[in-house]
Amino acid sequence: MTTVSGFLYPRTATGRSSLIPSPPWHYSGDLLTVEYRTDPARVRELLPEPLELAPDDPGAVALIWADWQSCATSREELLDPVRAQYKEAFAVVRCSYRGRTYSRCVYIWVDKDFAIARGIHQGYPKKLGSIHLTRPHPYGPAPKIEAGARFGATLAAADRRLAQAVVTLREPAESNGFVNGHPMAHHRLLPSIEKGGGLALDELVETGAAAFEGGVPWRGEADLELFEAPTEELARLEVREPIAAYYRQVGVVWDGGTLLESLAKDRS
Amino acid sequence: MTTVSGFLYPRTATGRSSLIPSPPWHYSGDLLTVEYRTDPARVRELLPEPLELAPDDPGAVALIWADWQSCATSREELLDPVRAQYKEAFAVVRCSYRGRTYSRCVYIWVDKDFAIARGIHQGYPKKLGSIHLTRPHPYGPAPKIEAGARFGATLAAADRRLAQAVVTLREPAESNGFVNGHPMAHHRLLPSIEKGGGLALDELVETGAAAFEGGVPWRGEADLELFEAPTEELARLEVREPIAAYYRQVGVVWDGGTLLESLAKDRS
Amino acid sequence: MTTVSGFLYPRTATGRSSLIPSPPWHYSGDLLTVEYRTDPARVRELLPEPLELAPDDPGAVALIWADWQSCATSREELLDPVRAQYKEAFAVVRCSYRGRTYSRCVYIWVDKDFAIARGIHQGYPKKLGSIHLTRPHPYGPAPKIEAGARFGATLAAADRRLAQAVVTLREPAESNGFVNGHPMAHHRLLPSIEKGGGLALDELVETGAAAFEGGVPWRGEADLELFEAPTEELARLEVREPIAAYYRQVGVVWDGGTLLESLAKDRS
Amino acid sequence: MTTVSGFLYPRTATGRSSLIPSPPWHYSGDLLTVEYRTDPARVRELLPEPLELAPDDPGAVALIWADWQSCATSREELLDPVRAQYKEAFAVVRCSYRGRTYSRCVYIWVDKDFAIARGIHQGYPKKLGSIHLTRPHPYGPAPKIEAGARFGATLAAADRRLAQAVVTLREPAESNGFVNGHPMAHHRLLPSIEKGGGLALDELVETGAAAFEGGVPWRGEADLELFEAPTEELARLEVREPIAAYYRQVGVVWDGGTLLESLAKDRS
Repeated sequence: MTTVSGFLYPRTATGRSSLIPSPPWHYSGDLLTVEYRTDPARVRELLPEPLELAPDDPGAVALIWADWQSCATSREELLDPVRAQYKEAFAVVRCSYRGRTYSRCVYIWVDKDFAIARGIHQGYPKKLGSIHLTRPHPYGPAPKIEAGARFGATLAAADRRLAQAVVTLREPAESNGFVNGHPMAHHRLLPSIEKGGGLALDELVETGAAAFEGGVPWRGEADLELFEAPTEELARLEVREPIAAYYRQVGVVWDGGTLLESLAKDRS
Repeated sequence: MTTVSGFLYPRTATGRSSLIPSPPWHYSGDLLTVEYRTDPARVRELLPEPLELAPDDPGAVALIWADWQSCATSREELLDPVRAQYKEAFAVVRCSYRGRTYSRCVYIWVDKDFAIARGIHQGYPKKLGSIHLTRPHPYGPAPKIEAGARFGATLAAADRRLAQAVVTLREPAESNGFVNGHPMAHHRLLPSIEKGGGLALDELVETGAAAFEGGVPWRGEADLELFEAPTEELARLEVREPIAAYYRQVGVVWDGGTLLESLAKDRS
Repeated sequence: MTTVSGFLYPRTATGRSSLIPSPPWHYSGDLLTVEYRTDPARVRELLPEPLELAPDDPGAVALIWADWQSCATSREELLDPVRAQYKEAFAVVRCSYRGRTYSRCVYIWVDKDFAIARGIHQGYPKKLGSIHLTRPHPYGPAPKIEAGARFGATLAAADRRLAQAVVTLREPAESNGFVNGHPMAHHRLLPSIEKGGGLALDELVETGAAAFEGGVPWRGEADLELFEAPTEELARLEVREPIAAYYRQVGVVWDGGTLLESLAKDRS
Repeated sequence: MTTVSGFLYPRTATGRSSLIPSPPWHYSGDLLTVEYRTDPARVRELLPEPLELAPDDPGAVALIWADWQSCATSREELLDPVRAQYKEAFAVVRCSYRGRTYSRCVYIWVDKDFAIARGIHQGYPKKLGSIHLTRPHPYGPAPKIEAGARFGATLAAADRRLAQAVVTLREPAESNGFVNGHPMAHHRLLPSIEKGGGLALDELVETGAAAFEGGVPWRGEADLELFEAPTEELARLEVREPIAAYYRQVGVVWDGGTLLESLAKDRS
């Protein structure tokens, strides 16, 4: 009798082929965050029931660029960095579920397959994209993390630019923004393999960091542009009012979440 | 009350952002197939119960390279071809389930995110890779589909070459090989979001083409090499005995499959 | 005393490392051509003396997408197709030199380094880009080369889309257009390594195919859009009047050109 | 009379399209250097006359991975980082010219077109490759620059891995190694456009940094592997004896070089 193993597919006798190893997953990275207000109706239309708009500042959006190195417990990916390094850009809104406020990633683009696979597990709706953000550096022309420093960030998918920002830092801050500061409320879904069969899996889950450390956040302001594309709706979250922008270096551990509700229709 | 739509995530009010549209999905493509025999024990270790080795020629493997253009019913992807074109390489074995023989994809690499997403739905264990295969052409130095024509095919992932083949065509054939000729028996799985929670979804599904057309297959022989890599086990399916190689141009429609068994452990 | 060899760098004892082998170079490929008229002043400003506007139809432009497989005499690249296959998009105008009409590539983007290197040699001003064009196919949803068939083509560089076209074929034609039909008049240039030293090499050369074969061209019309970008000026060649569009499959051999003038300033 | 401008092609009325802007070019980056000794005969065969082996330690090689952000005087590339960021891996040996010791880059791979173009100008024999190196980070699992820290580095081209290293840091050091510490003696070459015409340009140039700043170098040891490939000869520089490995963060300005000799044969 054969047993296959591996946290995800492809599953084999050894488990070595799995696209992602078992959590915990460890991350080192830089976050460039642009917060602004859009029409709350544009946020609401992205929140399936039972989620509702957050009671406070319901149109707040965070568009976040991240430059990561990640690994599992063995840390071996760090020494073969094509397997550890990736970049992502993602849009976060807030919502309310059973009276509690959650953050929720509504769009996200990454540049590696292992990052897509972790998103399937965590409920991040990941597509592939091309993501770039200026990195701080102590020498030469690149910016340091200091007052007046300017960082650029861009996002493209399917050979179209979807977003670009230039952030100017002003001062150290208490926080790295407020939109992405709650536990995440995400859906995990998979359609039935049978035509017209609805969803085989439809879960509402809560996820968040199991451990966190980080440097002093810096706050500034951003010049942000969003662009239309045939298969993307990021630009519907149009900028009505800038809030602020942030830069922060962080270390994060992710180690599982909580099932809030299993919503899949009965398939019997 | 908000409803979001879209066949897959990200789901929005319009459904336009979904990483993949609803089936049916239509494909035009070229298939280069290399069939050989490996140790049947290496096939068996990839077949979780209730699957068993195929009774006849249980060590047969097909390693297939495909160069696709695909679209949904609107066919709009064909006119923005970055959204239609992709290449893949995949290893297929055969297995037995309830007395019937199935084909089963045990490893597969693709080069676009929409192809990964379709694999999640269909139970193909897709990773990203870099896939190349010689294309037939009527003019210049490229081969035509004819006796003596030679086609090369290569696969790499994570900056390592995993497989390479050179196929020489000999004559028209009745079939395009036998290993990938059955309905597919695939698992669709997603781990529980909760640590140690087992699988939230674990389905055995049957999928296959809803419609098919194709040119005359050509048969020949292949020179095939498989290479080791830290996170891949394709090379464990070592070549013991070549069978044959094939080239065929095809059109395919995929429009859903059948749930054979839902294997997920009770999560109550 | 050491001699290194190789048609181009890096040059070694064996010559095997050269980024490109010695000509002749052989090509199989598909050409999708969109011809239109722009303001002749926009063409003139791209023609350094001694080149002048072509006397007839001086504002004519051809924007061409090509999907190539190429190799040197050994043809070994065709069997390791990552080394043979590339795509390109390029803008061609016409000019006059000493009373003769030439074609001239003013912008070009390719997706492989060996194609860049051949451009350095031939005077094509190549950048990297992401190029896609629909491929004809005999089965499934992809177009055949026939009346009513539609082909899409796109170009992006630095994560911005620069051009996109949809071509609808109408009928077989006598030619594949007229703008790219002359010998090419190109500059080959390299600045002096010394600051403010002008050009170390500044040649006007003539190049063209040493041999050519091709299928019947098909003519139709195009819907073409050009987009602005900070470091690109393709969109300055704005569409004033469409001419026609063409699709043709070809085989080409390139085997050297002719030095017309050496223009480099004296560096003594 | 038309004049076109731009430091390199494509040259236009504005100069805005040039693949690279005029020097000076400014760089911020991290260098991971692995020094070792190979058979001096393998170095000698890469040194065309009039270059000779360096008199001291002639078989010394430095294989260097670099992660750069670069820009011209305007620094605008830093804010559109797809135009500023690139990675490279390169092999450096030493040589002697007219009694002076020079460094010389014999192989180099980069991942952006503007980096290739700068190489054409500076005499670096650049190909495209896929380059990765672990980045230091103050939080999470990534290494800091400190004793015991481990950094991985890999190089691939044409879908084959060519080199990989793991470096363990031990202590601060006086230097960042000695092989890449001299002015560079490079060839700039372009074959004649005419078949059998020899070289149109064949210059021996000297280049080096116009300005430099950097952090404390760290020294350690490396585990280095080189791999064969059909069109690469890096592995001929086989490791006979490890010397040391280094990590250093630097800022560099490049602003032109010096023509040592013009070697092109007379083409009259």
